[in-house]
Amino acid sequence: MQISRRLRNINQGGSDGWEVFTRAREMKAAGLPVVELTVGEHDIPTDPEILRAMYQAGLDGHVGYQNFQGQPALRERVAERVERSTGTPTAPEEILIVPGGQAGLFATHNLTCDPGDTALYIDPYYATYPGTIRSVGAVAKPVTARAEDGFQPDPDAIDAAAEGAKSLLVNSPNNPTGVVYSRDTMEGIARVCRDRDLWLISDEVYDTQVWEGDHLSPRALPDMAERTLVIGSMSKSHAMTGSRIGWVVGPREAISYMGDLTTNTTYGVAGFVQMAAVHALDMGPAFEAEIAAPFRRRRGVVMRALEGQNVVRAIPTKGAMYVMLDLRATGMSGEDFAMALLDTHHVAVMPGESFGRAAAGHVRVALTVADERLEEAMRKLVAFAAGRVR
Amino acid sequence: MQISRRLRNINQGGSDGWEVFTRAREMKAAGLPVVELTVGEHDIPTDPEILRAMYQAGLDGHVGYQNFQGQPALRERVAERVERSTGTPTAPEEILIVPGGQAGLFATHNLTCDPGDTALYIDPYYATYPGTIRSVGAVAKPVTARAEDGFQPDPDAIDAAAEGAKSLLVNSPNNPTGVVYSRDTMEGIARVCRDRDLWLISDEVYDTQVWEGDHLSPRALPDMAERTLVIGSMSKSHAMTGSRIGWVVGPREAISYMGDLTTNTTYGVAGFVQMAAVHALDMGPAFEAEIAAPFRRRRGVVMRALEGQNVVRAIPTKGAMYVMLDLRATGMSGEDFAMALLDTHHVAVMPGESFGRAAAGHVRVALTVADERLEEAMRKLVAFAAGRVR
Repeated sequence: MQISRRLRNINQGGSDGWEVFTRAREMKAAGLPVVELTVGEHDIPTDPEILRAMYQAGLDGHVGYQNFQGQPALRERVAERVERSTGTPTAPEEILIVPGGQAGLFATHNLTCDPGDTALYIDPYYATYPGTIRSVGAVAKPVTARAEDGFQPDPDAIDAAAEGAKSLLVNSPNNPTGVVYSRDTMEGIARVCRDRDLWLISDEVYDTQVWEGDHLSPRALPDMAERTLVIGSMSKSHAMTGSRIGWVVGPREAISYMGDLTTNTTYGVAGFVQMAAVHALDMGPAFEAEIAAPFRRRRGVVMRALEGQNVVRAIPTKGAMYVMLDLRATGMSGEDFAMALLDTHHVAVMPGESFGRAAAGHVRVALTVADERLEEAMRKLVAFAAGRVR
Repeated sequence: MQISRRLRNINQGGSDGWEVFTRAREMKAAGLPVVELTVGEHDIPTDPEILRAMYQAGLDGHVGYQNFQGQPALRERVAERVERSTGTPTAPEEILIVPGGQAGLFATHNLTCDPGDTALYIDPYYATYPGTIRSVGAVAKPVTARAEDGFQPDPDAIDAAAEGAKSLLVNSPNNPTGVVYSRDTMEGIARVCRDRDLWLISDEVYDTQVWEGDHLSPRALPDMAERTLVIGSMSKSHAMTGSRIGWVVGPREAISYMGDLTTNTTYGVAGFVQMAAVHALDMGPAFEAEIAAPFRRRRGVVMRALEGQNVVRAIPTKGAMYVMLDLRATGMSGEDFAMALLDTHHVAVMPGESFGRAAAGHVRVALTVADERLEEAMRKLVAFAAGRVR
């Protein structure tokens, strides 16, 4: 039977760069003591208090169909949080509740792109970006952020790629690089979007993981609220990864149209999950800081492990739960390095190549294991790299 | 800012036929004692035992990222249930777990249709069908099932509409008509699908609500498993409406491609919800029969209320939680009848026109209130209709 071109086109065949991840899982299943620094998933589970609130909401009757754009109580809380953290006035009607940040990426590209339209994204990129763009039938066009620029995107490079494009997808704090876009970078991006009449899709799911300075949402820049669609999620900020709850912030008309789409994709989000999210947001900024704290601390662990050598260089990161390491001094690709490190030392990191061409010769370390294990894994990684310099 | 044609096209403007529903909600909010027989939502909440299992699964750590095609334990249970209820061998690899039946409708049309392709559906239809087809950029083409045929679709009419189409969407037991397709109808549909090389998308979310005979899944007919995509859900069968949990059954390759899509639409379904679904399925067929029982009983209430008069005629229904009533003897449209009934007697039913042209002059009664209230509402409806005959 015939399968649509759109779905056949989502994954473009060949290596997807996740062989290290798969091999690590196989080795672990076979009983080997593998340290997994691959996936961006919390090592702390969802707070039992949040799960208890979810259970209670179910018992209280939040078990029927929901408003397709989200429950009023949750839209209000999210609007308040966005307004507080970005300084931009935000109404509940500018919030769409979706089942996780990924659903927000899908909805926003559906809103902005028709089949055949071009959507820009920055390379290195989070694994699903190009597939999400292709899954709405659009053309995924990368713009390189260069290692030499500390992986800050170059507005001129975006401008050069923008002819005929409908949207630009950015992500700061960034997965996989850990980079936080500077104010200069963000203002340059905003300028290009205004000049080229692009929608700016801003994935801000790591907004609580900024280790130096403050989070800057491009929606807060002049004349940007009307063309910016912000994606938020409680996966990283509240360790609610598995609850699949997030939102899109955008102009009312855009939210309304994405609400029409939501009716046809998921028919709303579970009411008890939405009420659990209300409870979690009411736990306030102190709880968010508590959830973010281990990653800040472990970033320090990695930095200290790199002292006194210059084979492994850390990209100057300021956020997110990752550190990107430059291994080009070894002459190895990220893929070869990661596979050899896994085989010899049972430490699994992601090859930079998994996240695009721009991160070749790098590996990404997820800060998702206990400090002591991370420290030991990093010592092994540094020693292994040193032994590979010819 | 420009919004994609696809999203602007989902709702094609004008009346959506849900004015009666909206007015009823407004009257209720204003304190009037409205009996709502509009939406197909259980009046019994999700069983506390299922909610307790969900809570426990969360505490047990099912709070992280999940397999994108669904948790193995749930795929196994669903495969067993499908095999048991349809007699067709079914493997876990032929099951995709999705967040509710609507997500299954979306995924299957994404799989079968590229932008511009034609997708067939039967009129009268469930409210989201044409919008779902348009939301993947395909052309929604209705095939009329006539009141004169008891709303059984006519295979010849489908054949006449099938030139160039990629898929056909059917729904038995049917919302809104309550009709269960006969074996003759189903075999005729299967023949057209084979002759015309159509995918058959079979929405079977009411599979436990069959009041006479057995549920017949077209996937069980000869040579149909390879071209049939069955949509299942626990909303109706297990009163888990708000949990948003369902599945698609189909050929392995199709499931795999829809898994790629799922990665980009929702990134999987909450693990604790999947484990609650496992628990609910393990409660067995007796629990499903218990959940279905009130609707069987209330269908009897409606039939008895219609005895001894011939102005209001019931379509000969055999399933689902609805009864479709033919009011053409009053000379009124379904919309006028429903609005007048609401205003004068505070009984809210859905106009047949809300579900397509084929159901003009009818109203749909949802069997979703307690027996006594339903009986009283039906008495009012019958008396009101009798008074309108000129």
